[in-house]
Amino acid sequence: MTDKIITISREYGSGGRTIGRKTAEALGIPFYDKEIIDLSAQKSGFDKLIIESHEENIPNSFLYTVAMGGYYVGNMLPDQIYQTEYNVIHEIAEKGPCVIVGRRANYILSDKYDTLNIFIHADIEARCRRAVEEYGADVKDARKIVETIDKQRAKHTSHFTGLKWHDLSNYHLCLDSEKLGIDGCVSVIMKTLEELK
Amino acid sequence: MTDKIITISREYGSGGRTIGRKTAEALGIPFYDKEIIDLSAQKSGFDKLIIESHEENIPNSFLYTVAMGGYYVGNMLPDQIYQTEYNVIHEIAEKGPCVIVGRRANYILSDKYDTLNIFIHADIEARCRRAVEEYGADVKDARKIVETIDKQRAKHTSHFTGLKWHDLSNYHLCLDSEKLGIDGCVSVIMKTLEELK
Repeated sequence: MTDKIITISREYGSGGRTIGRKTAEALGIPFYDKEIIDLSAQKSGFDKLIIESHEENIPNSFLYTVAMGGYYVGNMLPDQIYQTEYNVIHEIAEKGPCVIVGRRANYILSDKYDTLNIFIHADIEARCRRAVEEYGADVKDARKIVETIDKQRAKHTSHFTGLKWHDLSNYHLCLDSEKLGIDGCVSVIMKTLEELK
Repeated sequence: MTDKIITISREYGSGGRTIGRKTAEALGIPFYDKEIIDLSAQKSGFDKLIIESHEENIPNSFLYTVAMGGYYVGNMLPDQIYQTEYNVIHEIAEKGPCVIVGRRANYILSDKYDTLNIFIHADIEARCRRAVEEYGADVKDARKIVETIDKQRAKHTSHFTGLKWHDLSNYHLCLDSEKLGIDGCVSVIMKTLEELK
């Protein structure tokens, strides 16, 4: 067990989600990833699909306008979704120790909680392989998908937090999952938690 | 023991040097930090002081010109010192497993060796405290010293390698020494090495 809230930021295809899930299982604490979308949809009344598309798209994209049937005004929708996810993440954190993947939870909880903030990354080739093998991407499209989603995550981070996504200062522990393997990363995270006690 | 060469990059005042030394002691392998300056001085004929000043100053600085009695021409001296340190680091690596602190060894050895590249960082307040307590800096100067040396390390990295010093992609393991403590960092590094076997 741990008394910590663990946030995991990750490059697309790095296995960060799996590492987060396995860590939560090993610690016997709740795991939140897509669950945050369900909770945000319930809370805001927005369709899950709109929230999901917001997560991988930069604000002001054409998609929002289309998704809202033309009702999109300026930055209102992305900011509203961010605010809803912000509230949901705080509600989750109030319940106690857990693992939260993505959604800038490291930043969102930084003022109030003593979190352990982790970043999982790997080289582009390893992540393309994973996109094909795990997520079923077409081999010829994999690199473009990986690069596009990473770019969007970096832009989102910069837009909503003012931080640089890849700046190691924003995390307590950064791990290369290609070097360490998925289970290796989980072991190192468990060791890190031990050292924090 | 490990069969790995471990490189440690670090923010000034983060305790990266101590973490590197303790890791080398725990593994029973050689530790190189200032020793690289001695070896580079022997090899190049440059004075140790000039090499030392090069390490914390950006190329083209006035200091080089003064130090060389006006014989400094363009980028020649910084590039010559970099090349000497490059050769020394390769000679060290050829001897076998070791811990090398600083000097962009992660980049220098990347083509030829399967290194474990680590970055140690901590928040600015913790590093200022360390600069005062460990290195004897004056309290009122500590912040300026820490920020100036970090800026110089970032500039050197960018100049000689084209990489961003703070980009987590350049390292397999990044650790916040304020969060984990010096011994905590050593333990996590040891665990990481175990997982690589």
